[in-house]
Amino acid sequence: MILDKVNYPQDLKNLSLDEMTKLAAEIREILIKKVTTVGGHLAPNLGMVEATIAMHYVFDCPKDKIVFDISHQSYVHKILTGRKDGFTEEKNYKKYTSFTNPDEGEYDQFKTGHSSVSISFATGLAKARDINKEKYNVIAVIGDGALTGGQAYEGLNNGGSFKSNFIVMVNDNDWSIAENHGSLVKHLQDLRASKGKSENNIFKALGFDYIYVDNGHDINDLITAFKKVKDIDHPVVVHFHTIKGKGYEKAEKDPEHYHGILPGDKPRFIEGKETYLSITADYLVKEVKKGNNIVVISAATPLYSGLPPHIRNQLGEHYHDVAIAEQDAISFISGIGKANAKPIFIVASTFIQRAYDQILQDLSLNNNPATIIVNGGGITPASDTHIGLFDIPMLCSIPNLTYLNPTCKEEYLKMLDYAVNINKKGPIAIRSPIKELISTGVEDTTDYSIKNKFKLIHKGSKVAIIGLGGLFQFASEIYEELKTNKNIEGTLINPIFASGLDNDLLEELKKEHNLVIALEDGSLEGGFGQRISAFYGNSNVKVLLYGAKKEFNNCVPIDELVTRYRLKKELILEDINGILNL
Amino acid sequence: MILDKVNYPQDLKNLSLDEMTKLAAEIREILIKKVTTVGGHLAPNLGMVEATIAMHYVFDCPKDKIVFDISHQSYVHKILTGRKDGFTEEKNYKKYTSFTNPDEGEYDQFKTGHSSVSISFATGLAKARDINKEKYNVIAVIGDGALTGGQAYEGLNNGGSFKSNFIVMVNDNDWSIAENHGSLVKHLQDLRASKGKSENNIFKALGFDYIYVDNGHDINDLITAFKKVKDIDHPVVVHFHTIKGKGYEKAEKDPEHYHGILPGDKPRFIEGKETYLSITADYLVKEVKKGNNIVVISAATPLYSGLPPHIRNQLGEHYHDVAIAEQDAISFISGIGKANAKPIFIVASTFIQRAYDQILQDLSLNNNPATIIVNGGGITPASDTHIGLFDIPMLCSIPNLTYLNPTCKEEYLKMLDYAVNINKKGPIAIRSPIKELISTGVEDTTDYSIKNKFKLIHKGSKVAIIGLGGLFQFASEIYEELKTNKNIEGTLINPIFASGLDNDLLEELKKEHNLVIALEDGSLEGGFGQRISAFYGNSNVKVLLYGAKKEFNNCVPIDELVTRYRLKKELILEDINGILNL
Repeated sequence: MILDKVNYPQDLKNLSLDEMTKLAAEIREILIKKVTTVGGHLAPNLGMVEATIAMHYVFDCPKDKIVFDISHQSYVHKILTGRKDGFTEEKNYKKYTSFTNPDEGEYDQFKTGHSSVSISFATGLAKARDINKEKYNVIAVIGDGALTGGQAYEGLNNGGSFKSNFIVMVNDNDWSIAENHGSLVKHLQDLRASKGKSENNIFKALGFDYIYVDNGHDINDLITAFKKVKDIDHPVVVHFHTIKGKGYEKAEKDPEHYHGILPGDKPRFIEGKETYLSITADYLVKEVKKGNNIVVISAATPLYSGLPPHIRNQLGEHYHDVAIAEQDAISFISGIGKANAKPIFIVASTFIQRAYDQILQDLSLNNNPATIIVNGGGITPASDTHIGLFDIPMLCSIPNLTYLNPTCKEEYLKMLDYAVNINKKGPIAIRSPIKELISTGVEDTTDYSIKNKFKLIHKGSKVAIIGLGGLFQFASEIYEELKTNKNIEGTLINPIFASGLDNDLLEELKKEHNLVIALEDGSLEGGFGQRISAFYGNSNVKVLLYGAKKEFNNCVPIDELVTRYRLKKELILEDINGILNL
Repeated sequence: MILDKVNYPQDLKNLSLDEMTKLAAEIREILIKKVTTVGGHLAPNLGMVEATIAMHYVFDCPKDKIVFDISHQSYVHKILTGRKDGFTEEKNYKKYTSFTNPDEGEYDQFKTGHSSVSISFATGLAKARDINKEKYNVIAVIGDGALTGGQAYEGLNNGGSFKSNFIVMVNDNDWSIAENHGSLVKHLQDLRASKGKSENNIFKALGFDYIYVDNGHDINDLITAFKKVKDIDHPVVVHFHTIKGKGYEKAEKDPEHYHGILPGDKPRFIEGKETYLSITADYLVKEVKKGNNIVVISAATPLYSGLPPHIRNQLGEHYHDVAIAEQDAISFISGIGKANAKPIFIVASTFIQRAYDQILQDLSLNNNPATIIVNGGGITPASDTHIGLFDIPMLCSIPNLTYLNPTCKEEYLKMLDYAVNINKKGPIAIRSPIKELISTGVEDTTDYSIKNKFKLIHKGSKVAIIGLGGLFQFASEIYEELKTNKNIEGTLINPIFASGLDNDLLEELKKEHNLVIALEDGSLEGGFGQRISAFYGNSNVKVLLYGAKKEFNNCVPIDELVTRYRLKKELILEDINGILNL
């Protein structure tokens, strides 16, 4: 194996082209073996094997600095920078994070999990280098998908005005997570078709010198191009064409499903089981068939939004992918709602963060009717780059926006229908629970147009338990426990509304309750529960809050998390005991 | 006067070119008279006089829909759409808002106060139109400055892929609020110099047809161009060249200072008085002179950041304007901090909202050293498009980020120096108070590296008053009032840290206090005070919170606001009385 003698970039420097080609094959094999075993991002990394080898052959890291966008394409880089044991040895498969991570050494610059930021980051490195009168290459690596994000353009606008070394590598595999959308796709196609010679080159328009490499899997061509730009004294784009999933047939044939895969070589999205997202898709298809003028929007993550190709086909013109552009998506739905159609934007909790201002200004200040389905929010062992704990604090600080947190299938569907078809004024977000779908079998007849009306499930005394959304089920269990084992017939509440309080009900509770417990499946600080605490601040009612601490966690096991956050029945009973002296 | 017979767009349709030219002169005169009297956005509107007349001559509003970006350029549109009384009659000068506003009638589509969103909004209108099988023109109007924002590009990427009518008007006056920055400036210069014929046309690259109008003040040329694109069946950009401040000599000569002016024809930014921003600028210039490797960043609002041209000149390469690109600014400063220089980003509270995800992911998750100065935050009669009440809830939900709220000049300067020069790890935001500068004359010797250490100003009993940042002064007055008139020697605390609690001190307060009052100069929901409420939730200490309600207010007089929020001494004493039965 060539890889046996390659641990760090300098080990590449003496390899022949032939050896590097063999190395590429070895790395590809290792990648496929690892990712099909434990899961991860396969297709994006397979496309970057040769380019990464060529980069480390030509440039001198860690002196030269490479910033990977999203870092779904950084596995090869990890293998070549002292971390191959995490890929070659099964026992070490979980040793390194799946994203670039400066904690793993000086070859990684940033933790990057969200798209379209590498150019901005790299401009920062370049600016500091220039101010500090240092000399090195700064290289941003970005995929064509990530290039659709507005921040990539902001980075190009800034980077294109530099008078010093600044290199942007565009890895163009003609794919985002799913197929690309927007007019840039066509432009990149034109550039590829013309071998980089077509007119109206956007990179040149933004001040960059430009080099095109037609075969991004030809190490020699890549090396030639990279040598040309090494130590360059101005901004340059190297645009190379790769094949997403290169060398792994299943991924080449279906790069969307093989963008990220689950352990055991399973695509992440498989048909069959009913989920909150699958019932959403069914609902949307049904509405379109009825002739409803809905528009379903994704920001380049249709599979993660429960919208696989056959659903998108059925939605037809009622499906619209805005590309990796959450900001645009929000102002877009505000416009759709304004002009009397019915927009539904499905987005992950971690990505809705990217449109805070648009939600506040363009959607909520304008108070246009629109629906946002937020999925993936909750306490779960997520990567620290994809934490879904901040959507409640974020959305609930925004006036006019209603944030509904359903607890079961029936509520969810009723809310969805209300938000889409009945809501005439103002934006409604619905948090699609991260938990397994729960069905009560009982039709929900709630009128969700009555704002901030909590559901009183059991009326009792002493202790009231308010379990928001994903933690309602757990709240019920505490209620049952108190009743069964502590002889307390408490009160159980399903608040539904994360964005506002039911002041009448909360006031009423004061009469016969000493303690109110609020649980939420998200970060406590700035969240739902703290509003309950504030409500009872001037009363004798005591309040205990449960949810996540304000912290970044990286794939912490759920057992550890629930212990840390005291989200365990016995711990909560202990706390109740401490207050009520049961 | 021609204007006498023009109230609505249809009144333009029978005017001759000569009459429209006269109308332009009349409108210009009215605009100058009004804005120099009561203040407002003069220069951007003067540049749009002819283009707005031509648009309303050619298109059929309100059937056709025009979306103005930021709407600093929408005054002429207001005059021509039934609202001229707000411009011609002094008593009505305040009758209409300074931005487009659907509440004022069907000619305005959205409330827009933040930049770079008009194209996204317009794509939404166009999509709804197409889904509803309607026919009308959708027109986004955007300035060259706003084009530097990433969302404008996301909008172009989306809009450029439409197969139906979609018109973008680019009003290119070669200015942002200040001079433009980034490589797009050069590209637009090339397009203008070549009369729209230069290669690498970014609009064409993004799928748009393209028409250039060299003289954006020639109504005839504009009408010809607009007629060409009316009812077009695909996306098109009309790029016209205008002069910012056209027809008003002072504004033409100094469009930066005359972008927005104060009543009495005074530029908004005048030298002399010491402010938090002026002492910031002095500090930064001094550091540069010392050879410090700081980098001062603005996102196209240098004047609003206390950085007038002479300061920028002194900062030299240590000043960097990223254009209207707050997202980029944050990742940029994270990169600068990572590579061992010292970034300071100065930004308004309302605009920091545009980079929530970048602050969370790119800056705080990476925990790089960087300083953000947030200005303009606080309870004040702002336009609803520029509310500065959400920065505390927003920033304080983010792990790793420290948000310091100084109460006087000495604290502010000490914090600034700590953040810039001593901080080695992690981002620090400082809220530059919106209030007048207060100087205690006493040097601040606090060590701000001790996180979440509140300042205990007076130690007493019964009532503790915690006054954050801009409301500390008011908190002191309540403290004095209790002491003087109620015979209560309470406790007074300057918490400094909005982003974390001093648990030891708060715990200590439990011993001898029945009531804790927290005041903050921002929105209560998700803010500082609710964390205090949560802390005392399981204790006997009662908590009262004061700050802004969660709501959008538009220029509500300060007297009305403080009454509504009970931020008056007598009202707070009344509340204290209700709890303590004084």
